[in-house]
Order: sequence, then C-alpha cells, then structure tokens
Amino acid sequence: MTDHPPNQKEVESTGVADQSRSAGDIVRAFLRLDIYDQVRQLQALPAPDAADLIKQLPREQTVELLQRLSRAAAAAILNERPSNEQADLLGDMDREAARAILAVMDPREAENALALGRYPDDVAGGLMAREFVAYPQSYSVGQVVEDLRFHATEYRDFQVQYAYVIAPEKKLVGVLRLRDLLLADREVRIGDIMIRDPLAVSDSATLEELRAFFEWHRFLAVPVINAAGELVGVVQRTAVEEALSGRGESDYRKAQGIIGGEELRTMPVWTRTARRLTWLVANIALNLLAASVISWHEETLVAVIALAMFLPIISDMTGCAGNQAVAVSMRELALGLVRPQEVLRVCLQEAGLGIINGALLGVLLGLAAWAWKGNPYLGVVVGAALAINTLLAVTLGGSLPLLLKRWRFDPALASGPILTTITDLFGFLLVLQFAQGLLPWLTRIH
Amino acid sequence: MTDHPPNQKEVESTGVADQSRSAGDIVRAFLRLDIYDQVRQLQALPAPDAADLIKQLPREQTVELLQRLSRAAAAAILNERPSNEQADLLGDMDREAARAILAVMDPREAENALALGRYPDDVAGGLMAREFVAYPQSYSVGQVVEDLRFHATEYRDFQVQYAYVIAPEKKLVGVLRLRDLLLADREVRIGDIMIRDPLAVSDSATLEELRAFFEWHRFLAVPVINAAGELVGVVQRTAVEEALSGRGESDYRKAQGIIGGEELRTMPVWTRTARRLTWLVANIALNLLAASVISWHEETLVAVIALAMFLPIISDMTGCAGNQAVAVSMRELALGLVRPQEVLRVCLQEAGLGIINGALLGVLLGLAAWAWKGNPYLGVVVGAALAINTLLAVTLGGSLPLLLKRWRFDPALASGPILTTITDLFGFLLVLQFAQGLLPWLTRIH
Repeated sequence: MTDHPPNQKEVESTGVADQSRSAGDIVRAFLRLDIYDQVRQLQALPAPDAADLIKQLPREQTVELLQRLSRAAAAAILNERPSNEQADLLGDMDREAARAILAVMDPREAENALALGRYPDDVAGGLMAREFVAYPQSYSVGQVVEDLRFHATEYRDFQVQYAYVIAPEKKLVGVLRLRDLLLADREVRIGDIMIRDPLAVSDSATLEELRAFFEWHRFLAVPVINAAGELVGVVQRTAVEEALSGRGESDYRKAQGIIGGEELRTMPVWTRTARRLTWLVANIALNLLAASVISWHEETLVAVIALAMFLPIISDMTGCAGNQAVAVSMRELALGLVRPQEVLRVCLQEAGLGIINGALLGVLLGLAAWAWKGNPYLGVVVGAALAINTLLAVTLGGSLPLLLKRWRFDPALASGPILTTITDLFGFLLVLQFAQGLLPWLTRIH
Repeated sequence: MTDHPPNQKEVESTGVADQSRSAGDIVRAFLRLDIYDQVRQLQALPAPDAADLIKQLPREQTVELLQRLSRAAAAAILNERPSNEQADLLGDMDREAARAILAVMDPREAENALALGRYPDDVAGGLMAREFVAYPQSYSVGQVVEDLRFHATEYRDFQVQYAYVIAPEKKLVGVLRLRDLLLADREVRIGDIMIRDPLAVSDSATLEELRAFFEWHRFLAVPVINAAGELVGVVQRTAVEEALSGRGESDYRKAQGIIGGEELRTMPVWTRTARRLTWLVANIALNLLAASVISWHEETLVAVIALAMFLPIISDMTGCAGNQAVAVSMRELALGLVRPQEVLRVCLQEAGLGIINGALLGVLLGLAAWAWKGNPYLGVVVGAALAINTLLAVTLGGSLPLLLKRWRFDPALASGPILTTITDLFGFLLVLQFAQGLLPWLTRIH
C-alpha cells in the first residue's frame, strides 16, 4: 500500500561529468534574455527540461514566466514539480491564471497542490511535500523491498529517506530508515524494526519551530500530522533551509528599501523603476517631515552657520548607530534568542551601550567641531546633541523590531524608515535648541 | 575496507516527543547566561551533550567558549563534532589555544581536522567531512551490507547517504545509493550496480560552484577529489546551504556596520561597544570629509538659509537610492548572475533607471521646495541637484560591489561607506554650486 499519486517527476542524474559546470552558465545565459525570449525558449523545451531550468530561477521570475506561457505549457511544467512548489507558485499567481492552469494540470497533481495551497507558505503544511511512502505495520521487510523495487522509478522523485508506518486512519505509528531495511532480515515485520512513536510536527508548526527541530535533530525530513492525527506529508530539511535563507536575504533587501519583491536587471526598466520608487517617494515625505525642524530654526542657523555642516553628520551618525541596534535585534529575533515581549530588557541592554558609545562619539565630534571652527561652545552643542541622540537611536533601534513584530508589522521593512525619521527629527531639534540656548557664546567668538 | 576513524559521534535520536519543543528553549536559556556561567555549565555536561548544545550556538560564541574551557573539556567536545566543524572552529581560535587543544584530542580526529584546516573555509576542501564509507568494486552487495551492519553504530554519525566505490590509490570509480543496495541481490558485485563515472567536485571548488552544483543536482552529498585524483571527503548539501545562509546573513550585518563579527546581547558590554564603534568612528571621519563641502560655501548658505533644510534630505535620498542599487548588485553577484568584469553593462542598466528615478524625484522635491519656500528657483536648485545626484548614486551603487570584488575587497563591507561619502560630497556640492550660480534669483524673492 502506498500513499501517493503515481507519476514521474525529475529523476536523479546518473552523472555526465561536465553537466555541473555548464548548469550555472545556462541559467545565467537564460536570465540575460529579455522576458519574451525567455517565454519563447521555455515554450520550446520539453516540460521536464523546462521544469529543471525553472526551478533554479528566483521565484518571482518563475511566477511571471508561468503566467506568460500558454496554460497547457505552464501546467505541463508544474506537473513536474513537487506539490509544495506547485502550491507556492500557484499561490503567487493571479487568481485567474492559477485557476486556468489548475484546470489543465494532471488531476492528482492539481488536487495535491490545492490541498497545500490552503496552508500559509511558512508553516509545516505549506512547506511539506505530499509525496511519501507509507506501509501498514503488518508488512514484512521483504514486502516493503518488493514494493520499493516495483515502484523504483517513481519513488526516485520523492527524495525517499524514510518510509512511514501507519495504522488504520492514516495514523503515524513508526518510521523506517532505508538503512534499517537494508540491515534487517526479509522476514521481519516492519513493526518490529521501525522507530516507534516517531517525532512528527503539526501541520501548523511555524518556520521557527521547524528550524529549531532540524537544528536539534539530524533528520533529513520530518513527518507532518494534521489536527485529526493523520499523516499528511513530509517536510524535508532542505525545504526549511531554503525558506529560511530566502527570508534572510529578502529581509536584507527590504532593509535596503527594495520593496515589492526581488529585482533582477533583466526585468523591464519600468518595473524596476516602480519597485524602487515606492520606497524613495515615501522617503522624501519622511525626510521633509524631519527637516522641517530645521526650517523652524532658520534664525539660529543664520546666526551660527557652522551648524549647517554638522546637521547632516548628526543625521547620518545616529542613523548608523541605530541601524546597528536594529540589525542585532533582527538577528536575535530570527535566531529565537529574544521574544517580542522583552522590549524592556533590550532597551536596558542597549541603553548601557548607548551611553558609552554616545559619550565617546560626542566627545570626538565635539573636539572636531572645536578644532575646526575654533569655538568650544560649538563643540559642546554638537557633541552633546550627538551623545544624547545616539543613546536615543540605539535604544529605539534595539526595541523597534520587537515592537513592530508584536504589532504584526514587518520589522525588516519598517524599522529603518521609522528609526531614521525619528532620529533625524530629534537630532536636528537637539542641535538647534542647544544652539539657541548658547547663542550668545556661539556668536561672540565666531 | 572502510576509510574513516572508528569513533562514536552523535547518534540520531530515536524520538522523545517533547524534546523538540524544549530544544530552542534550552539554547535560549543558555545564551542568556553570562559567559562565566556558560563555561561552568558546559564543563559540567558530558561531552556528547555539550557538543549537542554547542553546535546550535553562533560560531563566534562557540569559539570563545571553547577557548575558555579546560583544554581537555574542549578537546572532548570537539571529538564529538564532524571533521569540517572541528577544522572551522580550531581555525577561528588563537593559534596557541588551537595547538593545545589539538594536542589532547583523539589523534585520528586531530589528524582529520589538521588536514582540513589547510583548506580555506569556503571551498569544497574546507566544507567537506572526511568521514565516509568506501569499498573496492570487487565487493558483493552482501559483503557491503555485512560491513554496514557490523559498524552500524559508528556509521550513524556519517550521515551516510551514499557509499563510494574506489579503485587502488583511492581513485573514485562509482557511487552506491543505499536504495540500490537495498533493491539488489546480495550476490551481485557492487561494481555492477554502482553509478559509474560519478559526479565529483575538486577540493578547490568554490562555494558558488557548489551552490550551482546542488541547485542542478538533487544529490544530498557530493564526493571530493584532490589534485592527485584521490577521494578525500564528502561535501553534504546541508554544509553548503549553511555556509551560504551564514554568508548572506553576515553580509546583511556588515552592510549595517557591525564589523568584527556577530554580536549577541549576552556578550560583555565592552566587547559590543568596541565592535560597533570601529565602524562609527570611521564614519565620523568620512562624514566630516563630505560635510567640509558645506563649510566652503557658508556665504551662499547664509544668503539662502532655506538650503540648509534640503542638504540632509539630498544626502539621505541619494544614499538610499544608491544603496538599493548596491543591494541588487550584491544579490546578482551572490546568485552568479553578474560577473565582476561586467561593470559597464551594469552602469548602463543603472543609468537608464537613474535618469527616470532621478527626474521624478527631482521634480517631486523641487515642487515641494517651491511650495514651501515660495521660490521657484529654489525648487530648480534642489530638484536638479537631486536628479543628477540620484543618477550618480545608482550608477555608482550598481558598479561599486563589482569593482570592489574585482579589487578583492569585501563588497558587503565597503560599498555602503564609500558610496554615501561620495554621494554626500557631490550632493552638497551640486546644491551649493547651483545656488551660487542662481544667487541673484534666489535672494531676490526670498
């Protein structure tokens, strides 16, 4: 008894030596074509080859290409991919396109993809493959080996590392490693050599929980159980690692303000422009808001024009100091070392560091200002402003990602802009207010 | 005949159901201890448990802890880890500490670690494990199964997915999948069921080459061959994925100016301070350099004080626009979609986008300046400066990572500071020079 649709997906290469060298080049060459030539080339390839090529492209690219292909060609390519990828790709398409492609896909493939599509991408249910091998515990090792041998070609696709042992109603009762099958006598019942009460994860387990699981256990895959206790799929270690690495990279780009997906230089220039502009236009508004503080203090600034040189410096320095704290918090959140509720602890830890760094940087910039302009009071103004604003920036930078996560915003996206707007605003205010207070001393020598 | 030291490393858990839930908590709790308590706790644990714990910590943390443990305890823990991790950790230690620990390690473990230590971390030789299973092709399936059965406990550690078939002088001639062993008759010679001329990588293959290899092939591991054609180790897919994900994350942090390694808030505050200050102090100097442009133009600025508000805006906006281009280039470099020599192509592609984005943002900021200050010439000055500087920033931002990589600097580290210093300098210069040229019109209405 096996528990999967019988179909033929990609088969492990048996090894032509120079294939590995050319693979990267093929993809690189393909990605340099414009999108129309890419579509033409995919349409011309046999579906298995097109599927091999497409799996190496960035996901956004794949989705766009599949939507531009004929429905039949897109369905044929998707039939070649495992169910979790089918679900991911269909989920990213327009509703209409996804429905049209599903209609012409292999019905069993379509059913699997639909079942997975009901899960979010980043839980076990969304990351699992529905293709696995399962047997009842009354089977003997010999029977299992017979079945494996009989279905050898199709099982190649499943990345079979384990076979599962199930009771009636698909209840998972054990795991068989291929190794154990290999080393056991053929007459033995698999119920006797299986690992009992095997570890499994719920279909709602989060990516963080899966990361922790695979960090602790050296398994290559873990079975997934739904709320009814049925074995519904298998999450491969590699699927979790891909999801994590994709998320880390995408956080990095979000922090750089590349919003709305991943850019490739082969995309049409208008698409790229629009993606980058989204964030830049919002940034102009935030900048005008922060800089309006300067506009209120124009008299002070005219009186002590040397300050104008230090305003951009304070803006940049405190932005950097705060972004360092953001980066540390983002990493600790990703590694699960800090929880969103622990804002207070992080604030205190950052405050200690902020006082030291702020004092040192303040003295440094103060001395530079004094030396340059020959006025010690100018040094006091910019040094004190930098010191206080650094303390504010690191405390805020450390806690913002936690707060945003608690309030269900994306910390990678929002931390930077919020932080720098606030630190600019306060930085300018501190410099100009201090200068207003010390105006007689600042203008006397200058 | 087997080709590895007989020792007992970690053994796959057979599954206590709540272990997975508590694993993350244990690590989290451990990481919150101060370093002295961490050392005390590690010293108290049996070596296999300490090794299980330590493998989940960030690498810098592990290195620091191992150096603070007694040499005997550190050696006992390292004996439990695979050879590639041993080599990585020892390589990151002080020379003295590494030598002292190697002296008390299991001699075979120490020999393997030393052999791997000669390779850089990010080539196949540095990522491979030297533990693998190999047999001559005259062996029968039955003999191989006997050997596997006899050494079952120790082979558990090797993550054995494949057995290798070797000719005299350790020349790799074939690969056996466990699956093929399972499905074959016991009398068959392994030479007859092995995959001939198997794919292998050179010990000098780079991380990028390995990424391309595993993207193209669904193998779990690939054998590694040295210059003499001998089979010297096996690179696991997971080792490559870990290295890539670690590098991506570390690039992200480097771009944020957290230099000198990875920070955790449990580290002593002085360590954290020092790490962050390195970059901030350098940044003050770069900022002073850029802002000195403002100092040369103080008369212009006093005459048109409204400009002071727009200087930080132009600095921030062009920095952001340029960093977006840096992020795209860093990603395309990492994915192997662009080569360091292709500076000209990238420049042209960025220039097109820079003209569009620059024009749009320039018009936007120009209109805002006009509306705010009621002077259309002010709008022209800041708008034109922003437009031109945006074009400069994206062209420079797109090409800098390629140039730095070509000149063998780390693009993640250096791109940001160099870019923003140059764009600040030119941004300030453009605004203030344009203003100087249009001074009569700027002061007339204002």
